[in-house]
Amino acid sequence: MTKPTLYTSLSPALLHLYDVSDSVVVIIDVLRATSTIATALYNGAASVIPVATVPQCIELGKEVGGITAGERDGKIAEGLEYGNSPFEYPPSFIKDRVLVLTTTNGTKLLHMALDNGAKEIITGSFPNLSAVCDHLVEKKQNVVLGCAAWKDRVNIEDTLFAGAVINRIQDHFHIRCDSSRLAYNMYKSAQPDLYEFMKVNDASHYHRLTNFGLEKDIRYCLAPDGANVLPMFKGDRLVIG
Amino acid sequence: MTKPTLYTSLSPALLHLYDVSDSVVVIIDVLRATSTIATALYNGAASVIPVATVPQCIELGKEVGGITAGERDGKIAEGLEYGNSPFEYPPSFIKDRVLVLTTTNGTKLLHMALDNGAKEIITGSFPNLSAVCDHLVEKKQNVVLGCAAWKDRVNIEDTLFAGAVINRIQDHFHIRCDSSRLAYNMYKSAQPDLYEFMKVNDASHYHRLTNFGLEKDIRYCLAPDGANVLPMFKGDRLVIG
Repeated sequence: MTKPTLYTSLSPALLHLYDVSDSVVVIIDVLRATSTIATALYNGAASVIPVATVPQCIELGKEVGGITAGERDGKIAEGLEYGNSPFEYPPSFIKDRVLVLTTTNGTKLLHMALDNGAKEIITGSFPNLSAVCDHLVEKKQNVVLGCAAWKDRVNIEDTLFAGAVINRIQDHFHIRCDSSRLAYNMYKSAQPDLYEFMKVNDASHYHRLTNFGLEKDIRYCLAPDGANVLPMFKGDRLVIG
Repeated sequence: MTKPTLYTSLSPALLHLYDVSDSVVVIIDVLRATSTIATALYNGAASVIPVATVPQCIELGKEVGGITAGERDGKIAEGLEYGNSPFEYPPSFIKDRVLVLTTTNGTKLLHMALDNGAKEIITGSFPNLSAVCDHLVEKKQNVVLGCAAWKDRVNIEDTLFAGAVINRIQDHFHIRCDSSRLAYNMYKSAQPDLYEFMKVNDASHYHRLTNFGLEKDIRYCLAPDGANVLPMFKGDRLVIG
């Protein structure tokens, strides 16, 4: 049997090069949107609704009686209640509640995948690495690993996650995609300490977040399987798939 | 003194993210356009005129009395005289002549850089690695390493060349650019045998060209300083800078 294909899109500005209509698209926004989404759902959130803007977040938050969350320039955005850190969403707080989350890069990419008719959309991050890999192997469909990047600029952490997925599941897919090779090689050379790799390479996002004192967030977001569920986009929201 | 910045654009579809108007832009199309350009100039060509299409190539070839060259799908394009291989342009043939060359990816990127008002445009490839690096260090201007990629898809060989440049000159530049880190890391992990790395990683372009029996071309295009001149874009053509 022919293996399904796997491609990696290193930036939203490259997503149009891949046929998402025939693929499962994995939205990857490691620092910190997709890590926080996995964590909130793992900790019992009823769903997470990703929205593009702060006004949408406020409006929808009222409509569904949800928690509104999102940051701009490292601070909780004006009019919202909570931030982007996974540590803000323990079970005692998030259980059975709806989280309306606005992020720039991850949400943009998710909506692009949706507009392009993606067959299925899930979100990936190190905290749910195994759930994502297991699903992709079971599903036996074509895959596009979509890095959310930073304002369309390729970033290290999303590329590392794509590489980590490829490292696990490459035998099950036909991969003729240099971006995937790039991601895989970077992941291999970053082993075993991804945090150290980010630091040594002075990753732009590492730099941005450590300026905000978020080392603990970064360490959590680079560790596998801390919140091992599969967020799947259904209707207008992410729920456990 | 503040160091100038260096950014890497891994695909033409990402070039708009960088301010080329304040930068020297290095056009990188390792297999094989920029390797062939360096080789033709090194072997004495008066100039190389890069054009986008076959009809333009034919027309301009007549106008300037130049050699017309270019391939489509691995064959000399209909109506043109020669192909893309650097070995087609020894001194005995190319000396003092004008080469009108049509390539898809490299030419497209060069014209994008031109349209965006690049301060200076040079071309880079392993055969002229040292000339490029020496120039960038001397020039002390901001740099954008522009990978021509393959139909906008990131490729291994152009990324490797960006990494090789960064490996040589990084101390002279301020680099806060994850794409540059990615390129640098890939280059380091590909050492010492770039050809083997391309093969093991089944780089898509390696695969494409070896199907055409072009191993010799690939080996030449991955070896440093075989044609160590600096092609610089002036007016409508590349000449030794």
